[in-house]
Amino acid sequence: MDFPSFLTSLATSFILFVILMFLFTWLSRKSGNAEVYYPNRILKGMNPVEGGYMTRNPFAWMREAISSSETDIINMSGVDTAVYFVFLATALGIFVFSGIVLLPVLLPVAATDHTIRTVNTTSKGTFNELDNLSMGQVGNSGARLWAFIVATYWVSIVSYLSLWRAYKHVAELRAKALMSPEVRADQFAILVRDIPPVSESQSRKEQIDSYFSAIYPETFYRSMVVTDNKKVNKIYEELEGYKKKLERAEAIYAESKNTKPDALKPSHKTGFLGIIGEKVDSIEFYNDKIKELIEKLEAEQKVTLKEKQQSSALVFFNSRVAAASASQNLHAPIVDTWTVIDAPEPRQLIWTNLSKKFYERIIRQYVVYAVVFLTIFFYIIPIGFISALTTLDNLVKLFPFLKPVVKLEVVKTVLEAYLPQLALILFLALLPKFLLFLSKAEGIPSESHVTRAASGKYFYFTVLNVFIGVTLGGTLFTSFKSIEHDPNSIFRVLAKSLPQNATFFLTFVALKFFVGYGLELSRIVPLIIFHLKKKYLCKTEAEIKEAWAPGDLGYATRFPNDMLIMTIVLCYSVIAPIIIPFGVVYFGLGWLLLRNQALKVYVPSFESYGRMWPHIYTRMIATLILYQVTMLGYFGVKKFKPTPVLFPLPIISLIFAFICQKKFRRFFTSPALEVVSHELKEVPNMEIVYRSFIPPCLSAGKPDEHQFEDALSHVSKTGSSSV
Amino acid sequence: MDFPSFLTSLATSFILFVILMFLFTWLSRKSGNAEVYYPNRILKGMNPVEGGYMTRNPFAWMREAISSSETDIINMSGVDTAVYFVFLATALGIFVFSGIVLLPVLLPVAATDHTIRTVNTTSKGTFNELDNLSMGQVGNSGARLWAFIVATYWVSIVSYLSLWRAYKHVAELRAKALMSPEVRADQFAILVRDIPPVSESQSRKEQIDSYFSAIYPETFYRSMVVTDNKKVNKIYEELEGYKKKLERAEAIYAESKNTKPDALKPSHKTGFLGIIGEKVDSIEFYNDKIKELIEKLEAEQKVTLKEKQQSSALVFFNSRVAAASASQNLHAPIVDTWTVIDAPEPRQLIWTNLSKKFYERIIRQYVVYAVVFLTIFFYIIPIGFISALTTLDNLVKLFPFLKPVVKLEVVKTVLEAYLPQLALILFLALLPKFLLFLSKAEGIPSESHVTRAASGKYFYFTVLNVFIGVTLGGTLFTSFKSIEHDPNSIFRVLAKSLPQNATFFLTFVALKFFVGYGLELSRIVPLIIFHLKKKYLCKTEAEIKEAWAPGDLGYATRFPNDMLIMTIVLCYSVIAPIIIPFGVVYFGLGWLLLRNQALKVYVPSFESYGRMWPHIYTRMIATLILYQVTMLGYFGVKKFKPTPVLFPLPIISLIFAFICQKKFRRFFTSPALEVVSHELKEVPNMEIVYRSFIPPCLSAGKPDEHQFEDALSHVSKTGSSSV
Repeated sequence: MDFPSFLTSLATSFILFVILMFLFTWLSRKSGNAEVYYPNRILKGMNPVEGGYMTRNPFAWMREAISSSETDIINMSGVDTAVYFVFLATALGIFVFSGIVLLPVLLPVAATDHTIRTVNTTSKGTFNELDNLSMGQVGNSGARLWAFIVATYWVSIVSYLSLWRAYKHVAELRAKALMSPEVRADQFAILVRDIPPVSESQSRKEQIDSYFSAIYPETFYRSMVVTDNKKVNKIYEELEGYKKKLERAEAIYAESKNTKPDALKPSHKTGFLGIIGEKVDSIEFYNDKIKELIEKLEAEQKVTLKEKQQSSALVFFNSRVAAASASQNLHAPIVDTWTVIDAPEPRQLIWTNLSKKFYERIIRQYVVYAVVFLTIFFYIIPIGFISALTTLDNLVKLFPFLKPVVKLEVVKTVLEAYLPQLALILFLALLPKFLLFLSKAEGIPSESHVTRAASGKYFYFTVLNVFIGVTLGGTLFTSFKSIEHDPNSIFRVLAKSLPQNATFFLTFVALKFFVGYGLELSRIVPLIIFHLKKKYLCKTEAEIKEAWAPGDLGYATRFPNDMLIMTIVLCYSVIAPIIIPFGVVYFGLGWLLLRNQALKVYVPSFESYGRMWPHIYTRMIATLILYQVTMLGYFGVKKFKPTPVLFPLPIISLIFAFICQKKFRRFFTSPALEVVSHELKEVPNMEIVYRSFIPPCLSAGKPDEHQFEDALSHVSKTGSSSV
Repeated sequence: MDFPSFLTSLATSFILFVILMFLFTWLSRKSGNAEVYYPNRILKGMNPVEGGYMTRNPFAWMREAISSSETDIINMSGVDTAVYFVFLATALGIFVFSGIVLLPVLLPVAATDHTIRTVNTTSKGTFNELDNLSMGQVGNSGARLWAFIVATYWVSIVSYLSLWRAYKHVAELRAKALMSPEVRADQFAILVRDIPPVSESQSRKEQIDSYFSAIYPETFYRSMVVTDNKKVNKIYEELEGYKKKLERAEAIYAESKNTKPDALKPSHKTGFLGIIGEKVDSIEFYNDKIKELIEKLEAEQKVTLKEKQQSSALVFFNSRVAAASASQNLHAPIVDTWTVIDAPEPRQLIWTNLSKKFYERIIRQYVVYAVVFLTIFFYIIPIGFISALTTLDNLVKLFPFLKPVVKLEVVKTVLEAYLPQLALILFLALLPKFLLFLSKAEGIPSESHVTRAASGKYFYFTVLNVFIGVTLGGTLFTSFKSIEHDPNSIFRVLAKSLPQNATFFLTFVALKFFVGYGLELSRIVPLIIFHLKKKYLCKTEAEIKEAWAPGDLGYATRFPNDMLIMTIVLCYSVIAPIIIPFGVVYFGLGWLLLRNQALKVYVPSFESYGRMWPHIYTRMIATLILYQVTMLGYFGVKKFKPTPVLFPLPIISLIFAFICQKKFRRFFTSPALEVVSHELKEVPNMEIVYRSFIPPCLSAGKPDEHQFEDALSHVSKTGSSSV
């Protein structure tokens, strides 16, 4: 890509962003769109237009975002979201402080060095005006390279300090959330798995209750045996489906009666897709079905509770300290039995994974790792194809009918600027679902953990395939032989290929923030979908609510995508410091924009009290080390004699990471007792705590509270007696 | 070494053993020797000659040893000793079951193959009658090699089964010990280190007490701040020294008064070694000194308790479950503060290490590892020298005056048989003290842990230097180049050198068990030392008791030495199956003999409830993998095509080790709550538990119990109030 097409790409991106922002200002003022632009506020029962940002000022939301405090974020969107902002702020801080020193120092150093300009200008089409400002411009083994060595150290030191502060801050956030005086059900429960087979004379419930009440005679409250809910859940979902259909049919009927009082009752055919089969009165049919299913559900609930008990249980304690302590203790001398972890929130529990056995989980984990490994390394082939295909010349060759379009100068420039990046972004959109599925298949018991696991896989995928894959690109196969001989040479090859791809990545980052964030803020797609659904599909209140349900921030892909940008900017920070402002804009704009989204739009689907952080941290360190090793390789290519002064950097990074993990890590897996021993504002109602963990499929269909007690009594009798 | 000298060595060893055994039978019957042969029984207050083994039957002790149960061992010598016997029995079992199959199958296979006899007989002096029975005898790539492949698998499978059974059994032993209804002080305490700096308004004691009573309001008993006892300990030891001297002087005086009533009071000079200086009346002088030191000690005790408090403490709980749980919990959100481990027994505590800081401990550990690494790899040079020097010819060259002695045929044969082995054994005797010192320098808080750490270091030292070092021996330097090119080739070189050293190791093992165990059983050296001391040095009862104090089994060197034998026998088991009976005799005789010693002689100096086991286990697995890789190399050297069928073995071993560690390991670091929640036979007297942890230098010199309370009140006041 040459310089003009780079500028075109930047300009078009920016114009698109400005358009989208004004669109947002205009659209978000219309009250009919409030459900799209303020769903979080609406769900929290707040007035969406409160605070006077229904003004015409297109920057009002920015003021709002900037003035919001971390506490606001935690209240509106939880600790996990606040941790995400700590991450954004850390990345932003690293780039701002790096830029303050690197831009005024390195750009002049590079721009005023003319040693290799004459040599390079004619070589390769990649050399352009941007390269004037990059390290490629500086002569090999010149004294000016010392400035770049110092810059490499400066960026590392800034990173260490920012990461240290961030880790400490996140630990404080987590501590504050865990010591909150609010009663949170998950803080009173632990998840016990791998319970040994029950003896003949006991029920599973008795076994568990007698075990824990012997160890914790004073603090054990009761237990809930995990059951195999597959069948009961299926019936429950069927029932819910019919309930919705009934509501819908009634709404349609009411509506049609409004227009003409003698309207027919709605009817449908019972066969395939409602096209064939007997025609029935919908309302009556659904009512019958529901009645039938409720009976079936109740019967199945009884069977499930009695006969489908698994070797896992949720165990409840009447104090936070007791539960936190129990979740960390070894209970049985055979370590792979009675394994415990602290219970996740009820809404995060993945019931189907709760009863997976110890070694089954380990084997599943390794199988999934192997699959992910294969995915990462065999996707590199399609990526290579795509980047080869998506040059304009190749496209014209493949699809000759495109020729007249491509001949237009404007179209050509835009296409040349965007095609490869678009292909890449599209390609990456296919993956997250697959990785989430894989992570779930590992047997992880909570949604937040699945998200963390998927996010890690996605990170390695993007960094390896996008960053390293694209950089090495064509050179990969030619340089494959040299890598085979000496695996370390991959860093040398990487370093060699880096400058050639600087503009590609500049465009990539710019596209990401202008277009990506523009779409994010304006919410054009959800808006259109919502209005279409509302107009043509939704008949009941519940259906409308479903149509605007905003979802959460989507950490599984959001973090790795941000990490990819961070990796790119960090690795280029010294080689082509001009990329730093792009990084600053990406993380600055991201911070601002997502602040708005977190406060008004997205609703978190779980709360893990910042457990994501150590994973983000590890990846940031990995990125930092990749940067340092790349710089080592790059200086090596330059044949700069004092290159070895950079050798300590990766080692320092490893020591730094080691100390940070020693100092903070364990608190993110085990709740510290000091923290949870803070007093609660009220004595917890253990019955409510216990009930909140009963899955809907087991508690539903019981309008009468007393009857419900009966149905559960098979398993909870001994529990109550031991209280 | 040729075949006759091998037989000579075996025969002399055996004769020596028989002589030592009869000596033992004769000496142990004399009642004056009871303190040397039955000290453990005497210290336990039992009658040494009980049970009728004061017979003339030299095998009576064997009957006694065989008929003793594991419970007897645990009662007399503790769980650690019982675990040691599990180890011996496991090794014995592996070799017995291997031998049952390997000896009748492999020996005929080897002996009846004549393919390479003609080629080899004249080559190298190492070929001898023994080689007829070894794998070296079997032709390369012959079908007979399949028998050896199967044998390799058989030995591995036998090892897996034995190790699995052993691990399970040891876990049960540990569980049984931990759930014992006896009150054991260490089960009620935890060691807290890295306590953050104390604020101005609080004392250290208040800080700790308020911290733990907030988290454990019902189970926290009190705390004991760790103090810097260096100075007070010095005074205490000086005082004890003078007390002993006084006792001695009084004993001498009483004795001399018995012979002549007007005897002079003993006197000595106060200067250097009692040779120069003023002459004083000893009894008076010592009395004055003691009085003076007691005052000094009391003053120093007060200063220590008040001003020398460190950032560590022992924290006591009034239930075993509470202490066990507290020792596993994370307490503070900053993980490197308030770190906890379960307290070791009071007698094992290394007070000087208790206050070492978190990162100091880590740094010390790595420094020690580096030192050990250097020690292991630079001792290889002296060992090379020694094995080159100790050939007879070289000795004669160096010390020409030996020539006439060496010319005698008998002397020559014996010398040739023993010299290299003796040099090696002597050399190895120098090391353990150094390794114990290094392990202590790591900052480990308990003696048992130091022993474990030293034992690990010694194991790697012996295996690397003795086994691999001697095997490669001379070939090491010649084959250094090929190793440098391809580090994996070390196994090939090792495999090549193995058969040449078979007889050396056979002799080494035989020497170890016949002479080593002969000396062990007969206790000639301790006997002579005891009688000399008793006759010429000891004047008081305490001094005599000190003279026969038996010490413990000395795990730090005993385990690695046994492991070395196990490594040797295992690695040769298939190559030269004739070594298996030697291994069986070593471990069988060892089991028998040490059973006797454990029951009657040695007194354990600590009890770690079998914590040594996971370390032994890891080393046994390491040995097994070394064996498997060596066999891979050996078959590779034989150019046997189906060698790759052995590839799965090391991988299976790793998976097996992984599963075992997952299943059992954590129980050896954390006490399982299920186990410690068993009821005690009495309510523990917490005051006694607490007091047992006060080091003698702080509790001594206080005849009046009340006064003692006063002295400690500075630190324990708040503690008592929070109970």
